[in-house]
Amino acid sequence: MPRIRFEPTGRLIETSNADLSVSEAAERAGTPLDSVCGGRGTCGRCRVVVTSEDPPITEEDRRLIPPKDLERGARLACRMKVTRDLVIEIPSEFIRARQIILENSFVSVETSPMIRRVPVKVKLPSLDYPVGDFERLRSALGGRINEGRLTASLPVISSFPKLLRSETDLYAILRGDELLHLASDMNSGKYGVAIDVGTTTVVAYLMDLDSGKEMAVESDMNPQMGHGDDVLSRMTFAMENSNGHSLLQSSIVQCMNDLIDACCASIDISREDVFEVVVVGNTAMHHMLFGLDTIGLALSPYVPVVSDSFEVKAREIGVLIGDEGYVSSLPNVAGFVGADHVAVLLASRLWESEDPKLVIDIGTNGEISVGNSEGIASTSCAAGPAFEGANLSFGMRGTDGAIDHLSISDELDVSYTTINGLKPRGLCGSGVVDAISEMFKAGVIERNGRIREELGSPRIRIVDGESQFIVATRDETSMKEPIVITQNDIVQMQYAKAAMYAGTSILMDRMKISSSKLDAILLAGAFGNYVRPASARIIGLFPEIPLDRVIGIGNAAGAGAKMALLNEDVRKKAVELATSIEYVELAAQVQFEDRFYNALYFPNYDTSFFPQVMSEISST
Amino acid sequence: MPRIRFEPTGRLIETSNADLSVSEAAERAGTPLDSVCGGRGTCGRCRVVVTSEDPPITEEDRRLIPPKDLERGARLACRMKVTRDLVIEIPSEFIRARQIILENSFVSVETSPMIRRVPVKVKLPSLDYPVGDFERLRSALGGRINEGRLTASLPVISSFPKLLRSETDLYAILRGDELLHLASDMNSGKYGVAIDVGTTTVVAYLMDLDSGKEMAVESDMNPQMGHGDDVLSRMTFAMENSNGHSLLQSSIVQCMNDLIDACCASIDISREDVFEVVVVGNTAMHHMLFGLDTIGLALSPYVPVVSDSFEVKAREIGVLIGDEGYVSSLPNVAGFVGADHVAVLLASRLWESEDPKLVIDIGTNGEISVGNSEGIASTSCAAGPAFEGANLSFGMRGTDGAIDHLSISDELDVSYTTINGLKPRGLCGSGVVDAISEMFKAGVIERNGRIREELGSPRIRIVDGESQFIVATRDETSMKEPIVITQNDIVQMQYAKAAMYAGTSILMDRMKISSSKLDAILLAGAFGNYVRPASARIIGLFPEIPLDRVIGIGNAAGAGAKMALLNEDVRKKAVELATSIEYVELAAQVQFEDRFYNALYFPNYDTSFFPQVMSEISST
Repeated sequence: MPRIRFEPTGRLIETSNADLSVSEAAERAGTPLDSVCGGRGTCGRCRVVVTSEDPPITEEDRRLIPPKDLERGARLACRMKVTRDLVIEIPSEFIRARQIILENSFVSVETSPMIRRVPVKVKLPSLDYPVGDFERLRSALGGRINEGRLTASLPVISSFPKLLRSETDLYAILRGDELLHLASDMNSGKYGVAIDVGTTTVVAYLMDLDSGKEMAVESDMNPQMGHGDDVLSRMTFAMENSNGHSLLQSSIVQCMNDLIDACCASIDISREDVFEVVVVGNTAMHHMLFGLDTIGLALSPYVPVVSDSFEVKAREIGVLIGDEGYVSSLPNVAGFVGADHVAVLLASRLWESEDPKLVIDIGTNGEISVGNSEGIASTSCAAGPAFEGANLSFGMRGTDGAIDHLSISDELDVSYTTINGLKPRGLCGSGVVDAISEMFKAGVIERNGRIREELGSPRIRIVDGESQFIVATRDETSMKEPIVITQNDIVQMQYAKAAMYAGTSILMDRMKISSSKLDAILLAGAFGNYVRPASARIIGLFPEIPLDRVIGIGNAAGAGAKMALLNEDVRKKAVELATSIEYVELAAQVQFEDRFYNALYFPNYDTSFFPQVMSEISST
Repeated sequence: MPRIRFEPTGRLIETSNADLSVSEAAERAGTPLDSVCGGRGTCGRCRVVVTSEDPPITEEDRRLIPPKDLERGARLACRMKVTRDLVIEIPSEFIRARQIILENSFVSVETSPMIRRVPVKVKLPSLDYPVGDFERLRSALGGRINEGRLTASLPVISSFPKLLRSETDLYAILRGDELLHLASDMNSGKYGVAIDVGTTTVVAYLMDLDSGKEMAVESDMNPQMGHGDDVLSRMTFAMENSNGHSLLQSSIVQCMNDLIDACCASIDISREDVFEVVVVGNTAMHHMLFGLDTIGLALSPYVPVVSDSFEVKAREIGVLIGDEGYVSSLPNVAGFVGADHVAVLLASRLWESEDPKLVIDIGTNGEISVGNSEGIASTSCAAGPAFEGANLSFGMRGTDGAIDHLSISDELDVSYTTINGLKPRGLCGSGVVDAISEMFKAGVIERNGRIREELGSPRIRIVDGESQFIVATRDETSMKEPIVITQNDIVQMQYAKAAMYAGTSILMDRMKISSSKLDAILLAGAFGNYVRPASARIIGLFPEIPLDRVIGIGNAAGAGAKMALLNEDVRKKAVELATSIEYVELAAQVQFEDRFYNALYFPNYDTSFFPQVMSEISST
């Protein structure tokens, strides 16, 4: 059988499957490669160096890999099959990096969880009291169950004879009318897990259901990344591969199990003690987790299989917790406004706010909601990836060495900070927004986005006919080549921010809320938390309001999931929200195009909405 | 590998399991042998003849098989292991006979079944109506579901994309709030099955849930018979064998599956079209079916694991019907008053009768209830087996050749009928009751049960010191030996009928109902249907009331199961009944002993309760 060895880890993979690609083998070897296209040979991210032979060069290699790299053996891992023994080196920049994941999320909610842990002592049977195990337990629970209703699965009922024929103090682990477990163990049912399944990152929170305290938090990259960076590539992967859905499902389930295990290990409890996992994710993540067909989400009219809140026994999808435990999802609103956004809305408490607010959650997708206690409208834009650094020349996620903030002086000197203070490798979303905002303020770019190459600064250069602004010089970077913002990067960013702004303004019109009436703009998610509100406002990402009312609310999706785990009423609220929200499909709005084209300008073609920004610009 | 061949069928069984007994091999070969002791070598019923060798004789063989049979190779099949090639002949009298099973059961109940089959046409999604599959279906069901509540399992939801994205007329198969199936098939969900799981016999009824019509009925012996004739031997079998419970469960499930298949085949539908099976059985059958531990039922204080009505997805216990279908059991009342008796009570409509009635169900166990709409008390007696012919010299079940009715003339001539008119092989329950009643009337036995051997009739003989009455002479029988009632047989019957009578009288006292106030005595089950009320009354099996008010009500347990299948309210009634019935544990009643000893007499020591019987006796 052909064997492939990966360096520097030294992991060996043997396979008799002549169709196994090197990228699939790398995943098996525990070193998943970066990928945007999901293995279709179009993104060029899964580069490896073959050291054991001079490997054949495919058409895609020639198109996507620079000649000098081709010479030293670099190839696309997704285009090469493991048909012979191979030794492969994975350059560190192509290992899927561990991103800085936003885990902070604060909740303040009364604990009244769906999982209840009720201490109980059950009377022993006798000839005068020849009552069945189940019925004696039910009597002992008395008023602590709903109208005397109690159900239990066959395996739980089968455990009764051992437990209920001797005098013991027990705990009944209840969920609604169902008895999930009868335990003598103190920890059983005491904890629950909330998981935010993002397209890029997955965060799990282990919560004490009694105190509401967060006991542990663990996060990781979503391993589905190996099948595509964004939702659409993964849906395409699922359509093009017969076992696509099941691969996507098993990889996210594996990730969840690992995170749950890590959380439990950190406070020394067993995963068997956990009886509920509340998950939030966008509609596609939701469908992939539950193994539902995503084709409806990929094609117009973009309908999910199920939107409503949904729960299954954890074992049905392979999530390993207490035997009869559940995985529950909050409801989705529509094909592109998922349970994660419902969770954001729960955490933002928009539904109980008198003053209207705007909530923007820019993750891999962007979701927007506007409203207050009287009503909420929501929409989504496929504008997210640019804010995560995707499709930009030096864009990268928020990992080590990413420039996260920068400023440009009048002399076009650039000063910046990087994540963990390492030598810069690229720019993450907040860095890109800073860069463009600062370039605009410094007069490097015009309102329409054009780089003024005529300024004649050494920071501006033209390569292959395209203008570029040098953010970090060759000497400063880890790659020994300069980090630049190209004209095309600016165009990408213009598209992204214009979509967000146009969507926002349509929602605000719909709700009859002008920006002067907006009480606050709440920014959820990692990008929202790290971006400088001032920079985002200058490029016109959102309507102009005073900066002290633009507030980062952290991982609000995670916070909403925790709230739902800790309080049953919050779930009812979620269902109410999901059904009462007015979902606005932007593709069906005639005004969208106009708004979008106006918003391509910095801050906007119609400057009257941005008086403060315009005065800042003119003052520099 | 040793091979064993069974004659006359010629079936071959190969085995490498040196522990496999010949009786187990016979079961595998499709010719299960009769057995009362469950293979413990004590009942002597599993006799076979070894023709391939002169087999070793075990201690049990010597004790239980007459010398002349030992000589011709007869051995106990449960005591012989298949360690070498064998040829085995099974004498026809030892093949477990197919009993005449009482299938007739009439129900008259409005059809309002738990399984509902709702025609539905679901609006297609569009950009203006981008609503999820599940939610569009729920809207389409509208007022036909309870407060808009709808749940469905993951596999059912997974079927939506295929069905709900093109215009089709569908049927939603609902049970409570749960959608069990979405079908384009006319038959799906139209039928249900009610099954009466008796200790000895199993009867399945396929019902049309729309019309309430019985479409098919199939019955068979309970295959657990191979592990013991009565409930107690089976519970002992389960305790003594590590896989005992699972063997008992799988054999009854297999039997149910076969009966369901046969029912479905007879009207050419698929078992997948069935989504509910309602079962009734005694508490032990109930526990064995669901795989629950029966040890609590075998030992004082005789508590079940669960009494309440209970349901599981059919697949959980291996019952093969529609994927998400259910097996539901009516509630049990106590360890020895099971769901089958609750079903009998449903069918008897005792709970809506103003006039008090007595319901007696003599199956393998005997259950008794007394009461009316104001209250019901129930008990059980382990008195049943004798009425099924067990433990009597020539007792047999109601199969071919059983004497079912007889009369004795003043000259002690006996005339009788047999089942299917064959040469007599023994006496079934109704035949035994006739025999003893007629013997008593003819003066062959005294009121205390003693046979008057001093009568000097050729019908009376003494063998090994024991008096016997010859019912059928050697020339008349199929075995070429006389069929007799021995003194010991009479004693067995006295014990049995005394227990029934004592139990009945205690219940009647408890409910303050004298026999003069009894409106009717309803006899359920096969014995109750076949026994001559006049004979039963003469031996004092039940209180004396006019004979036209002693009514056989057929397989009332089956009728009750059908009612519960056809009407949801009947199930609520069943739960109400099971919890409101006063269960009387005879073992805890001080008066029981006195009543029992009095009732050992014919008709009773206290003749004042039997004026009519006494006048009949004295007139003969």
